[in-house]
Amino acid sequence: MKGIHKTGPGPGATFGKVDDPRPAADELLIRVTRASICGSDMPIFNWNSWAPARFPTPNVFGHEFCGEVVAAGSNTRDFKKGDFVSVESHIYCGLCFQCRNGQRHVCQRLKILGIDGPGGFAEYARVPARCAWKHSDSTLADVGSLMEPLGNAVYATLIEEVVGRSVVVMGCGPQGLFAIAVARASGAKPIVAVEGSPYRQKLARKMGADVIVDPSSGDAANEIAKAVGPGGADVVLEMSGAPAAIGLSLKVVRSGGRVTAFGIPPGTLNIDWASDVVFKGIRIYGVAGREIFQTWYTTERLLRTGAIDVRPVITHVYRAKDFQKAFATMAAKDKKCGKVVIEF
Amino acid sequence: MKGIHKTGPGPGATFGKVDDPRPAADELLIRVTRASICGSDMPIFNWNSWAPARFPTPNVFGHEFCGEVVAAGSNTRDFKKGDFVSVESHIYCGLCFQCRNGQRHVCQRLKILGIDGPGGFAEYARVPARCAWKHSDSTLADVGSLMEPLGNAVYATLIEEVVGRSVVVMGCGPQGLFAIAVARASGAKPIVAVEGSPYRQKLARKMGADVIVDPSSGDAANEIAKAVGPGGADVVLEMSGAPAAIGLSLKVVRSGGRVTAFGIPPGTLNIDWASDVVFKGIRIYGVAGREIFQTWYTTERLLRTGAIDVRPVITHVYRAKDFQKAFATMAAKDKKCGKVVIEF
Amino acid sequence: MKGIHKTGPGPGATFGKVDDPRPAADELLIRVTRASICGSDMPIFNWNSWAPARFPTPNVFGHEFCGEVVAAGSNTRDFKKGDFVSVESHIYCGLCFQCRNGQRHVCQRLKILGIDGPGGFAEYARVPARCAWKHSDSTLADVGSLMEPLGNAVYATLIEEVVGRSVVVMGCGPQGLFAIAVARASGAKPIVAVEGSPYRQKLARKMGADVIVDPSSGDAANEIAKAVGPGGADVVLEMSGAPAAIGLSLKVVRSGGRVTAFGIPPGTLNIDWASDVVFKGIRIYGVAGREIFQTWYTTERLLRTGAIDVRPVITHVYRAKDFQKAFATMAAKDKKCGKVVIEF
Amino acid sequence: MKGIHKTGPGPGATFGKVDDPRPAADELLIRVTRASICGSDMPIFNWNSWAPARFPTPNVFGHEFCGEVVAAGSNTRDFKKGDFVSVESHIYCGLCFQCRNGQRHVCQRLKILGIDGPGGFAEYARVPARCAWKHSDSTLADVGSLMEPLGNAVYATLIEEVVGRSVVVMGCGPQGLFAIAVARASGAKPIVAVEGSPYRQKLARKMGADVIVDPSSGDAANEIAKAVGPGGADVVLEMSGAPAAIGLSLKVVRSGGRVTAFGIPPGTLNIDWASDVVFKGIRIYGVAGREIFQTWYTTERLLRTGAIDVRPVITHVYRAKDFQKAFATMAAKDKKCGKVVIEF
Repeated sequence: MKGIHKTGPGPGATFGKVDDPRPAADELLIRVTRASICGSDMPIFNWNSWAPARFPTPNVFGHEFCGEVVAAGSNTRDFKKGDFVSVESHIYCGLCFQCRNGQRHVCQRLKILGIDGPGGFAEYARVPARCAWKHSDSTLADVGSLMEPLGNAVYATLIEEVVGRSVVVMGCGPQGLFAIAVARASGAKPIVAVEGSPYRQKLARKMGADVIVDPSSGDAANEIAKAVGPGGADVVLEMSGAPAAIGLSLKVVRSGGRVTAFGIPPGTLNIDWASDVVFKGIRIYGVAGREIFQTWYTTERLLRTGAIDVRPVITHVYRAKDFQKAFATMAAKDKKCGKVVIEF
Repeated sequence: MKGIHKTGPGPGATFGKVDDPRPAADELLIRVTRASICGSDMPIFNWNSWAPARFPTPNVFGHEFCGEVVAAGSNTRDFKKGDFVSVESHIYCGLCFQCRNGQRHVCQRLKILGIDGPGGFAEYARVPARCAWKHSDSTLADVGSLMEPLGNAVYATLIEEVVGRSVVVMGCGPQGLFAIAVARASGAKPIVAVEGSPYRQKLARKMGADVIVDPSSGDAANEIAKAVGPGGADVVLEMSGAPAAIGLSLKVVRSGGRVTAFGIPPGTLNIDWASDVVFKGIRIYGVAGREIFQTWYTTERLLRTGAIDVRPVITHVYRAKDFQKAFATMAAKDKKCGKVVIEF
Repeated sequence: MKGIHKTGPGPGATFGKVDDPRPAADELLIRVTRASICGSDMPIFNWNSWAPARFPTPNVFGHEFCGEVVAAGSNTRDFKKGDFVSVESHIYCGLCFQCRNGQRHVCQRLKILGIDGPGGFAEYARVPARCAWKHSDSTLADVGSLMEPLGNAVYATLIEEVVGRSVVVMGCGPQGLFAIAVARASGAKPIVAVEGSPYRQKLARKMGADVIVDPSSGDAANEIAKAVGPGGADVVLEMSGAPAAIGLSLKVVRSGGRVTAFGIPPGTLNIDWASDVVFKGIRIYGVAGREIFQTWYTTERLLRTGAIDVRPVITHVYRAKDFQKAFATMAAKDKKCGKVVIEF
Repeated sequence: MKGIHKTGPGPGATFGKVDDPRPAADELLIRVTRASICGSDMPIFNWNSWAPARFPTPNVFGHEFCGEVVAAGSNTRDFKKGDFVSVESHIYCGLCFQCRNGQRHVCQRLKILGIDGPGGFAEYARVPARCAWKHSDSTLADVGSLMEPLGNAVYATLIEEVVGRSVVVMGCGPQGLFAIAVARASGAKPIVAVEGSPYRQKLARKMGADVIVDPSSGDAANEIAKAVGPGGADVVLEMSGAPAAIGLSLKVVRSGGRVTAFGIPPGTLNIDWASDVVFKGIRIYGVAGREIFQTWYTTERLLRTGAIDVRPVITHVYRAKDFQKAFATMAAKDKKCGKVVIEF
């Protein structure tokens, strides 16, 4: 079969022949229909940041994808040929303390599809059956690869209820855009999006942001305060990973408010722990991944019922053979994209 | 009347004549029986850190105290001469968003007794009636001034349930010692106390710590892991404010675990936000003060029913005239004290 | 002044001269602009059910109202002449265990305005300042008397989060209609309204119900199951008080689901405790009133931001002198009304 | 092999030869070391109540047991010959909404071991590997069969935190006794046990009850109020299933308090829904089974750390051949037993 893979260490990737996946007894073989590029695929493609130390080559990458079950291993239940599935990228062991205490997404033996082993940027992929989410039909086929990243935003946003609360979303990449949509569907008001790219600001409005603040304005904190009230925001969703945005999050959240830490900053951060965490009496939630499968149910319902529409976030769709364009779109400095999807 | 006060800026304090407090219509006049020294009284006494910028002089300080109601203002309800009361040091407005949403301890207009105005290191004190906790009798007279700091530990420890959970307590000053007692009474196991002072290690054992780890051993993280299991601790209560302890807290908590941030570090901290907060999916709770009055009910019940005994933490009791000795005990480098109480 | 009052025991009421209210030091004098009729006003008017045993005569009734502050007692804070206020009808003591543990709505010494003392169906009313909700302006003047009953629905609906959950609302009187609006604004899907009156079914649709089920169809349980899925509903909001509806609530909720019990049935009920409560592992929340003032903040925000619009529920507005028509509208067997408002 | 089984419909049981269990690929074969009799085994033995309509014959019954793994099916992970395991009796499907939303104990396709299929009153048993709880060693061998029923009590008691709360336990059969121990270890005070049997009252004291109330005294409600305060109990754990006790539970719980409904009453109950549920604003939790495996972790830790000692509840241990005595002990009207254990 053909897949987008890295043949060895170094920047770039190749679309070409790779070994056919051979699913184990507890795995499914999936014919991939759509995949999407996650921000964390970029270090792999670019071969920088954490990738050289973790990503094994040769290897197919990609961990946001959906497709059709082609074969179900003998130890699987509940799946049959033809089922349309989206994929949970966190391969959890199912046996450790976290897995058996409702926290599979932080499993002690966590592996990530397409990072720690072969992924979904290919015609076919094998995945543990326990990581497959079966759709009842193909209604969500076009957004099937988005359920994984959307799940991040659902979990990040709804880790505490937001109805009637003011919400600030830091960063309007796909995750921030999704978070805006989820917050809006869940009754949050006002929703303040902090984003510098005019292209993404426009998308933020479309997804339901009430107020847009440009972080480079030099007065972002005041503009946010103007929108949410001088006491500060009830909720801040840090979806950017930008160190300045994380610092700003702790400043603009109100005393007794909540910060969700989703974005991944490079290196360490300087935090005013006393003033910004202790005295303010805030709650900080680190979020990596999604609750398996609580978040999936909520995500699917939000999509199916039309409570949220994530299609505007898909700004680019490429054929697999044009994958170089897809990665170039993601890498462009002007950030003129939302989610970039690849069709197989 | 006589009180321990600062006559003006500069180190030290005086025990002598001060103006008699004149309670307003919504205040109580209290004859102070016992007060205790909080760690935050030391910058006032020493005139360093935040104190010069905030503490007004001349002023009586002290915010942990109890006593007898001498007079109740015309706008007060529920109090009468002779009532024995402990005092909530957080003067909340009662009207702001936080006050009316169950978060009075982070009131937007918060003032602290004995810091932002006259306090309780005196023969008499005036306090807003809404900040007085009426005891049904004088059973807790000897520990009445400890309800405020003990409340910190009750709130910090029980902000999430601890029964059957492993708990690490960073620092065994009075707050850490109280936290150990609360955790133990609430079913936490094992309880690991991290403390370097042999004197305080002994107190930690007495309060119910199962394992003692010396942070200066060079191997504290491993020793903690040995006690709580290699996955890490379910709960870390950071009661010390030492930057190294805060860093260690984020390292030894398990993925999906909880950190309570109570101790106040000087300056800013360097945090590995990505690895220690986001990817671990932890919850961090900043705690300043106590829930008013939820925590007070729990605190009183724990004391009255004998579920916890905080008397061993009172290692020194001084008469007011010997207040210099009291402060010297607190300031001693060898940390050979728990809670230091002053009798009036 | 003039008020709608009962001169003595027996059915009916009078609009005429009553003593001017004389506010105490901790009370406000309010010029009532709008009031609305609660279902619980009907037993007072009709002089049946619980009313003869509880309602003191002569007395002005009515507990849903808003208006302008005319005078603020000397022991009040935060109010001044001209402030527009809505009124919390639950007079809580502020001192009991419940009041100081975030449960003022079930205060041990609870009194209800307009039931246990004079109410708001009058030109002027006196209310404890602690029960007044100050608006920042008069934007919500037309729905100001609805904040109290809407608060019931907000609390009943959001006592657990509903985003992405299926919700069944039993009964589409004003409380059910409000609950539909709140559930919709908070991301619930689908929302199934169970109501027999075509007039109210239409209102239910308007407020956001996805599916309407007629309880008299003989097949309500199946129709609900068809809408929410065979496993049952995630959430049932029992807003009717009809014994059959309460029984149905316990049947149609899914295992592990939630029932909010708000409607007040006459007499006792027969419950299949083993099958419907224990084995299903459900949670039942009794709800009377609103969280003071958490619910008020959420309610105000939902109204101000336009997240919900309750104006369609106000189906009738009468002048005070036409109060007989107002009560006749409420009492009509055909239930062709939503909320009935009286202007003063 | 030999097992305690019913050869056909009708009262009684036989200890004799039955077919050897043949574990499927996802099952374990277990050599049973200890089993215990649950109250729900009695209808099977006596052939009354729900048993004739549900229990298939011939069949081995018994669902509280532990033992040693003899063989692990090819589709199992994490188990090997010699592992000591306790057994979760709720066979959950693992695939339904509840199973994937943290509520496996109310799985839509729930089967109970020893009721809906062969159980553990036998020399050997087969159980789905996903229902086995592996111990790290055999420290808890003597109480291994008690983890399942103790888990009920852990879940029922700790569904909300109890530290510093007053707890009333209705009924002191094994479940009530366990609940007392759990509440005590978790900081509840006072703990009031409501039980008529002097034998069980004594056990209740041993497990940590502070006050014993005889329900036949005619004044139980007042005696409870005397112990917990006139406002009522914070928490009532209904572990008896006696209709009168359920009614009493709703009466003695305080406004805003919590009732856990665990005991299974025969037939339907008359409930004063308006006064006892709605106006009091209480929360009722139906509890059947245990959270899988959250509760198991807590249960194991409470046992291993010595936080609770359930050995006094094991009042009788019989060899399998003496099973008739075991059932006679359970059935005796004088209730002079706690948990009855059978050794294989």
